[in-house]
Parts: sequence; structure tokens; C-alpha cells
Amino acid sequence: MKIAIIGAGALGLYYGALLQKGGQDVHFLLRRDYDALTRHGLQVFSINGDFSLPQLKGYRTAAEIGPADLVLVGLKTFANQQLRELITPLLHETTQILTLQNGLGNEEALADLFGSQRVLGGVAFLCSNRGEPGTVHHLGAGRIIIGEHQPHDRQRLERLATTFTAAGVECRISDDLKRARWEKLVWNIPFNGLCALLEQSVDRLLTVPACRTLVRELMLEVIAAGNAQGLAKPIPDSYADGMLEFTDNMGVYKPSMQIDREEGRQLEIEAIFRIPLSYGARQGIAMPRVAMLATLLEQATPGAAATPR
Amino acid sequence: MKIAIIGAGALGLYYGALLQKGGQDVHFLLRRDYDALTRHGLQVFSINGDFSLPQLKGYRTAAEIGPADLVLVGLKTFANQQLRELITPLLHETTQILTLQNGLGNEEALADLFGSQRVLGGVAFLCSNRGEPGTVHHLGAGRIIIGEHQPHDRQRLERLATTFTAAGVECRISDDLKRARWEKLVWNIPFNGLCALLEQSVDRLLTVPACRTLVRELMLEVIAAGNAQGLAKPIPDSYADGMLEFTDNMGVYKPSMQIDREEGRQLEIEAIFRIPLSYGARQGIAMPRVAMLATLLEQATPGAAATPR
Repeated sequence: MKIAIIGAGALGLYYGALLQKGGQDVHFLLRRDYDALTRHGLQVFSINGDFSLPQLKGYRTAAEIGPADLVLVGLKTFANQQLRELITPLLHETTQILTLQNGLGNEEALADLFGSQRVLGGVAFLCSNRGEPGTVHHLGAGRIIIGEHQPHDRQRLERLATTFTAAGVECRISDDLKRARWEKLVWNIPFNGLCALLEQSVDRLLTVPACRTLVRELMLEVIAAGNAQGLAKPIPDSYADGMLEFTDNMGVYKPSMQIDREEGRQLEIEAIFRIPLSYGARQGIAMPRVAMLATLLEQATPGAAATPR
Repeated sequence: MKIAIIGAGALGLYYGALLQKGGQDVHFLLRRDYDALTRHGLQVFSINGDFSLPQLKGYRTAAEIGPADLVLVGLKTFANQQLRELITPLLHETTQILTLQNGLGNEEALADLFGSQRVLGGVAFLCSNRGEPGTVHHLGAGRIIIGEHQPHDRQRLERLATTFTAAGVECRISDDLKRARWEKLVWNIPFNGLCALLEQSVDRLLTVPACRTLVRELMLEVIAAGNAQGLAKPIPDSYADGMLEFTDNMGVYKPSMQIDREEGRQLEIEAIFRIPLSYGARQGIAMPRVAMLATLLEQATPGAAATPR
């Protein structure tokens, strides 16, 4: 299977590396680290065992990659205005596009551009960071949940899940991708938001009772908003407690948004906060704490927010 | 009138200087800046006209000051556990104690220690900072509203107001000190809190619409909590709009809590946030944004919060 990885950050590099190691024909669109990766390959430091790919097919433009069977999108969501330019050269008649991006609105953006039948979405529970050029660090988890944006071809979805599983990626199919996305937001909103705002890793938030309570309150607002979107099965409030315990086991982990802030990069406030807030508001769900967190993040990182408000 | 100033920070120095300039016998308890102030006096840089006091009666202990007619308390509220030690040597039979401290709980603390009849409270609308040792900068406003903790002797209150007025301090009497305190919190909670958290002056908050909205939402939570405390006359929501406009005119102003954070000092989170939150909670008033702000401040300044939570 010819696979194009668009957005080869910590997520794109990690899954791309596993797919290549699993025998797939993987092509990476690279910006940063092009030289290091094409010359020396990729080194993956993983809790599941380190490995390296001495050879890696890296490109500077999508046109050089050409049509692929699967496009895996790991782009930061604030770069979504580049989707048309980056993906158009990669399409043949039956190319599938799988977005593993954060937040909401990504499948919709892809469906608007390329038609909903091509579009699959997934949420990744992955703790990974980039290290030195040519390296990626896999610190924890890694499973993905994938689903169709609109019901179209379940067998195709199952084949894709098999491809990931064969590559060593725990992959589950969801018939309610929307629910999976909101479940991910239950983690992403409090932890990405608070860790980026306070510049503190997850463990520091969870050890202070008042702050742990705040994390849970943020989670409950997200759950309420998600459950107002017509999910097949509601997310129970106990999901928040499960996520707290899951995070307790992560130790001194910095979410990607915290690292982005530390390194002065733009934050995914629109996809992770503003779009979910607008979906909540549309259903009349009050999300005062989530809205406050979004505003504080925008205020704390002027210029780093996608759209000044 | 013999006046003892306890807590000679920007507020205590400023009002003490005016009272001395107005002919009162003012005695300052000093820690920081003792040397500069007792050797060279005090220089006041004021929007109402600069002036200096070449001589200033400064002391290292309250015992050296001895009994006074009025004790003006400008201490940071997290130092309230020192009130007994600092004020006891200053009392004669009819000594009045006027606290101009921030937040809630100060009159109560003084009344518990020294009896409610002595206790007067006031809120100061003062923009002032300390500068170099021996200087204080008066940047704006300056009026105070004073009232009795418990109705006791209105003539005494009026005489005190006259003393301030004669010294050039705009001073109004309130028969509802509680209301005046909550009105002050309508400003203090959003601006001290957000400016300290984000390390941004008031103008930066107010120019961003989403942040201006957040300031107003915080104000409305404080107004709702205040109005649940049995005020003689409720605070109207329009008070928030008045405070926003008032603050628009302050320009690049840093509230005291922001300066305290910048300089690594302890923050008055207990008096300005936690006690008002507990008063609100007691009356069943939801204050999610104020609570979140308090938690974020505590989290952002570990060790700077009075009590770890």
C-alpha cells in the first residue's frame, strides 16, 4: 500500500515509521528535518523498543510523492488552509484520506475539499515528542480509534484497521467517530489547555486537589457538550475519572500544546477549543470554564492563536 | 491626632504622607526602606502634584510608637496573623482601627482580636506603587469609602472622614461597608487575578474582545455573590460596565497583585478570592470563573498562595 504522510511531526513520523517497518510503502512530506531524515533515516526511541529506519522516503513537495492509496494527515490544524494544496497531488480514484489531527472540524474540512467518501478520521492516544533532527520519542500509549466520516464502506475501514494492527499499532474501529473525537477532547481540553497555560506538566496539575477538581470540571463540561451532539451512546461522567487515573500513570508528561508554547509555535486553539465551544453553544450547553481557558490561552499567546479574537 | 500606619506599603505610605502633610501626627511602622525613609524622608510623585516630607517618624516596632488615636492598617492580608502583635501596643481606651486592606475578612479578624467597636473599614480606590526606597508613586484615583464594621458611633466616623478630607483625600462614608467591599471586589477579582496570572497590564486585557467579555463575566459573578449577602441595596449589573469604562481610562496600569507576582511576593489570594468564594458558596451562588481563576493563580504561584490547597 502506498501511503503518504502529510504533517510529519511526532505523530506522523511515529505512525509512518511503524507502517514502513510493517512493510508498507511509506512516503513522508517533510519540511523541518528534511536533510537529517533523508540522509540518515529515522531513529525511534520507543517504550515498546527502539528501532531505526536507515532509509526513509522524504520529499519536499506533494507532487514528488504523487498519487497514493492512503493519505495520513498529521498536520497541525492551524495549517488546514494548506490541505487542498498538499493533498490534491496525492489523489487517485480511490485514495483514502485519514486524518489523525486534533480537535474538531478536520473531517469536515477534508470532506468539503475532496468529498466525504474518501474521508476517514481517527483519534490517536499517543504520547510522543520530536527530539533531535531525525529522531522521535515515543513515551506512552499509541493506540488509535478510526472511523468513517460518513458511513460508506465498512470493509475498507476494516482493511485499514488491519493494516495498522499488522504494523503493531493497536487500532480499534468506531462506528461513532464523533463520539471518539469528543472522548479525546475530554483529555485534550483540560490537559493541553492547562499545561500550556501554566507551563506545567500533567502531574503537577493532578497533585493539587483544587487543580485536579478544575481538570474534572473542565472534563464534565466537554462531556456535556459532546453528549448534546447526538452521539449513538452518551459518554458517562465516569469517563472523566477514568481519564484522570489514566493521566496519573503518565508521570511527568508535557502535552503537545505545552511543548508548542514552550517552543513558541502556534497553538491549536481553534480546533481543540473554539470549534468544540461553538458546537456546545449551538446546543445550548454552558461551558464557562472551557471558554475561559480558551480565552486565557489566546491572551497568553498573542499571535500564537490561529485567529485573533 | 496621633495616627499609626501599620503596613507602610504603597497605600500606607501614600495616605500616611497626606495625613502628615495635612497636619496630623503620623507614625509609620517600617520594615523595608526604614533606613531611606528615616534618613531622607519620603518623596511622593503624584498626579495631583509631587511633594516631599523631609522628616518622617519611622519605627521598627509598634511598642516604640505606643498608643495612638487611630491605627491605619495597610498590611497585606496574608500577614493578618501578625495583627495582634502589631496593634496591641498601639491601643488606648478609644483607639480606632481603620483597615484599608484588600478583600474580605479583615474587619472580622480585627473585631475578633480587639472588639468590633474599635473597628472601621474602608476601601481605597488608589493606583499607587512603591518606587526606589523612600519614594511612592501615585498614578491615579485615591478616594476612599469608609464605614463602621458594626453601627456604633456615626459622629466618630464623620470626624474621621473630615480628617481625611482635610488632608486632601476624597473620603465618602458608607452605611453599608459590606457593599463597598463587594464593589471593590468587582474590580479586584478580575483585574488583580487576570493581570497577575497573565502578567499583563489592564489595557491588554480590555483591548481583546473575548478577554474583555471574560472580565465582565467575572464581575457579574462577583456582583451576584455580593448581592446574596444581604446588602441594603443590591449592586446593579451596570456597575460592571462602569468599572470597565473606569479601567479603560487607567491606561497601562498594573494591579498590585501583578506587581507582587512579578517581584516574587506572596499574593492575597485568600482575602481577595477564597473568602469571597466561600461567602458566595454559602449562599449557593455559582462562581465557576472566579473559582477557576483562584485555582489557576494558586497553581501558577506555588508557595505564593497563603494556604496551599
